[in-house]
This record gives sequence, C-alpha cells and structure tokens, in this order.
Amino acid sequence: MTQQTTPPAWIAVDWGTSNLRVSLMYADGTSHCLTSDQGMSSLNPDGFEPALLALIDDHLGTGVTPVVICGMAGSRQGWAEAPYIATPCNPPSLAEAVSVRANDPRIAVSILPGVKQEKPADVMRGEETQIAGYLTQNPDFDGVLCLPGTHSKWVHISAKEIVSFRTFMTGEMFALLTKQSVLRFSVQDEIDLDAFDIAVGDALSRPETVGADLFALRAGTLLGSLSEGAARGRLSGLLIGTELAGARPYWLGRDIALIGAGSLTTLYQRALALQGITAPTVSGEDMVISGLTAAHTQTKV
Amino acid sequence: MTQQTTPPAWIAVDWGTSNLRVSLMYADGTSHCLTSDQGMSSLNPDGFEPALLALIDDHLGTGVTPVVICGMAGSRQGWAEAPYIATPCNPPSLAEAVSVRANDPRIAVSILPGVKQEKPADVMRGEETQIAGYLTQNPDFDGVLCLPGTHSKWVHISAKEIVSFRTFMTGEMFALLTKQSVLRFSVQDEIDLDAFDIAVGDALSRPETVGADLFALRAGTLLGSLSEGAARGRLSGLLIGTELAGARPYWLGRDIALIGAGSLTTLYQRALALQGITAPTVSGEDMVISGLTAAHTQTKV
Repeated sequence: MTQQTTPPAWIAVDWGTSNLRVSLMYADGTSHCLTSDQGMSSLNPDGFEPALLALIDDHLGTGVTPVVICGMAGSRQGWAEAPYIATPCNPPSLAEAVSVRANDPRIAVSILPGVKQEKPADVMRGEETQIAGYLTQNPDFDGVLCLPGTHSKWVHISAKEIVSFRTFMTGEMFALLTKQSVLRFSVQDEIDLDAFDIAVGDALSRPETVGADLFALRAGTLLGSLSEGAARGRLSGLLIGTELAGARPYWLGRDIALIGAGSLTTLYQRALALQGITAPTVSGEDMVISGLTAAHTQTKV
Repeated sequence: MTQQTTPPAWIAVDWGTSNLRVSLMYADGTSHCLTSDQGMSSLNPDGFEPALLALIDDHLGTGVTPVVICGMAGSRQGWAEAPYIATPCNPPSLAEAVSVRANDPRIAVSILPGVKQEKPADVMRGEETQIAGYLTQNPDFDGVLCLPGTHSKWVHISAKEIVSFRTFMTGEMFALLTKQSVLRFSVQDEIDLDAFDIAVGDALSRPETVGADLFALRAGTLLGSLSEGAARGRLSGLLIGTELAGARPYWLGRDIALIGAGSLTTLYQRALALQGITAPTVSGEDMVISGLTAAHTQTKV
C-alpha cells in the first residue's frame, strides 16, 4: 500500500453521508487509500468534484482515469442522482450507473445506483455495493446478510439476487440516546457485556416494554442500583435485542453473515450467538472495494 | 386573575427541567401566574433563589411568605435535594418536604420530594404532586393515571396510594427523531390522524418491528409513497402504540384518567379510544396547583 509514481489505473470511491473514502487502484494490483470528512451532508452538488480532486489531484496521470463511486453521492442531494433500482434485483453494475460530466477532463466519473423496495418501503445506498463484493467472493451464498451500522440492514439473498431487505434505525437511536437524551448522564462508561447479554434476552422476549426499560437505566443509576457500565450494556442490548426480535423472520433458520467491522459488528455476532446462531463476519471496507472492483471490471456477480 | 396590591398568602411553584411556573396564591382565593425559562437545567444550585426572586420580588410583603415547590428543584442537581420517598406511598406531603434556608428573609421555602420505585427502577419529580392534586379532587379514585409528556408515566393508584408506576421515554424519543434524526426530513407537516390510527394498531400488534417501521417513514417519503403528514402521523402512532403495548398491564381492565393538556394528551386519548378505552382528561397545571395547595394546607389526601 505504498504510494506509487505511476498513476492509478482507476479510482474506487465510497461516498457516505459523513465521510469520503477513496482507493487509488494500481495496475499491479496494489491500492492506496485516502479519506476525508467531506461526506454528502457537508457538500452542495457543485462541491463534490472539488472535494474529490482535493484528494486525488496529485495522483492523476495525463490520460483519463475512470472513477467508480457508490453511496450517498448518488442521492438526490448528492453529486448527481443515480435512481434506485427495485428489488428483486442483482446488485447494480456499471450498466446501471450514471455517468457524471466532470469539469476536470482527467476523470470519467460513474455513480452506482442504490436499491429500493416498494413494500415495506425501504432504501439503501452503498450497502448494495458491499453486497456485490460479498457475492463476488461467495457466489453460491444463499441466506441473509446483516450490515450493522447507523441504519442496519437485513438482506435476503437468493440466486445472487437481493430478494428483500429491512432497515432498522438501531445505530442512530443508540447515538441519539447516548449523546442527546436524559440517558447521556447514565451510560458514560465501558460497556458491561454481562448486562448486554441479559438485555438482549429481555428485549427479545418483551420488545414492547423497551421504552420503559430504557428510562429504568436512568432511574437505576440515579438510585444507585445500576452502574454506568451496566446501563450502557443494557442500552446496547435492549436496542440490538429489539432489532433481532423484529428481524427474526430474516435470521431464523437461514445462513447468515455479518458485513462490518469493529465493536458494533462484534456485538451483533454476540447477540446472535446467544440465540444459537453462528454468523461469520467480513470487513465492510473490503467488501466495498470488492464490489466497486466487480462493477469496474464488469464482472457479473 | 388580576394583580393585587396585597401580598400573596403563599406561593406555589412548579419547577421543571426547562421551565419555572410560579403561582401567587391570595387569601381571597384568587391567584396570579408567572413563568420563566429558568428551569433546573439552566441553573446552578445558587442560581435558584435569584431566579425565583426575579419573578416574585415585587409581590412580596414585609412578613414571611411560605413558598411550596415541587419538581426538579428538589433533585440532586437542583436547589436542594429532597430525597425520594419509596412506593407504595401516599403522594408526599409537607411533612416530608425539605426546608431550604433562603438568603432572603421574606421567604420560607419548602421543596416536596419525588417518588422512587426500586424494581423496576423508576423515579418521578413533579408528577407526584399532580397525582396528589387529582386525588384531592377524586378521593375515591382507584385505577390508573397516565401523565403524557417527555417522560410519560403510568401510575397505579389504589386506596389513595401510589402502588407502582412505569415511565416511558416516548415524548423524548419523538422530539429526538423529529428534530435530530434522518426522519427530520420526512415529518415536517401537519399530522395525518388516519395514519396515526393505523400506526397505533400496527405497533400494538407488532411492537418488535417499530425500529424498521420508523426507517420506512424516511424511505416512503423518499420514494413518494408516503406524504410528510402521514409520516408524522405514523411516527407519533408507532411510538404511542408501542407505549400502549408496554403499558397494557396498566390500562387493561382498569379505570383510567389522563393528566395533561393539549395535543399530546388528546393523541393518547385517541389511541386509547381505538382500544375501546374511555379516558377522561384533566389539566396538568390545575392538578399541580391543587396538589401544592393540598400540601400547603396539610390536607391529607
């Protein structure tokens, strides 16, 4: 992953709401990764090209370099809208991408579309490319992919198609509750995993009382019967447990894999293990690169 | 409610997290209401007396005026801590209040305690005084009081006692989701009550999928299949419906009354009516005054 003097053969871009991740892809199979905080939410439509060039300008050659983008840059508020394709569908390929006319003649920009589902209404942008990457590496996979995150996704895959999916606001809810709500005074300590485990079970058996169980975290720490670490563990366990209760039709009796990295995915893996489900994990960043590469090389997954 | 030239006989104070509400109580039975935004969250412990005096200074006589306070002024971060009394209990009276030594000799300040429950852990500060007010006016009430709000309470009352209660974070969740979450782009219109009604039923029958039903509001408005008014109605209905599902052991088969005013209480009344429950409403502000008056006059409720 050392920087090269020859220009990249093409450029892979994962453009999220909060971050921009660029991978310079070299002909010899190496790559070089660059990131910035110039996510979709901080940019106007005419700010995308300058934000991208700020990262890649020094690396471009004299010819035209293909740039393949997935994520929120293709939303209505993004660089250019790449309209959703509808389930059931294969993950989008370059054939369905939108070509963007850049001002700089050295780049040829394509933005991959997201995927929509009419009923229940649902959308994804970016995850479909991680899914494409996973299916490139596991072409015979039949089961469910879970992508934990701000808006976690449960995706039913069969015959290389995205059959259906559902999005849960679990991650955003956790962030709001720990940073903005009255619970922020009660959960500022390292997570207690025993408390997490119990709370997952509580939420799975009684998801309807989670609204009251949440306030009990504040009350318990106020009354001295609950530590902040246990409160944080219970908060995380209640939210992930409620999600598992709602996603049960997805994970029950099916093969499942988790796409993601770090502590959040580990918590999902742990919660599923408590239900007797073994779910392997793969890196989300690796899957994005794999998916963008599949699109760039027109590999049909 | 015209302002008087004689000083008030005593002063009733409802000191919440965000607001301070003072009622000057005159010997002839009239009262005069004053409010400010100097709630507990904006004050240090030594800021309470000046904030109170800023409202009442001009109205005080030369003698000592009793001031009876309920709410967050009695919390650990308040003016002076008034330790919780434990359920089961009568609503607190002046005998359990904390006397505060004020710097100004013209006021004699008492702060009423809140109520705590050990298991499930729960607390209230202020609502116990509304409950005292309700029981003063309805001494034979046996059933459940529901107090909608930021942290809504369901309180089981029997033989004039607070037997048990549970707090739901529904109001705070609604505020966070409509103002801070991705849903803020999808719910900025007048509430559609038909959508509210359907969502209450959806949440009551499947509370575990609410996390996904919430994201579907964003997806539905993005895809054009849901109006913002319907999304707001569904958001409110999903949250209140989930609360009703969790509070079912409280409201099922018991007499129920709602303490509160305005549109939120009306929505709870409507959601309960959909379950065949008739719940009368009374004003929360009236109940606070009634409860503080009961404490001041040492009326045993």
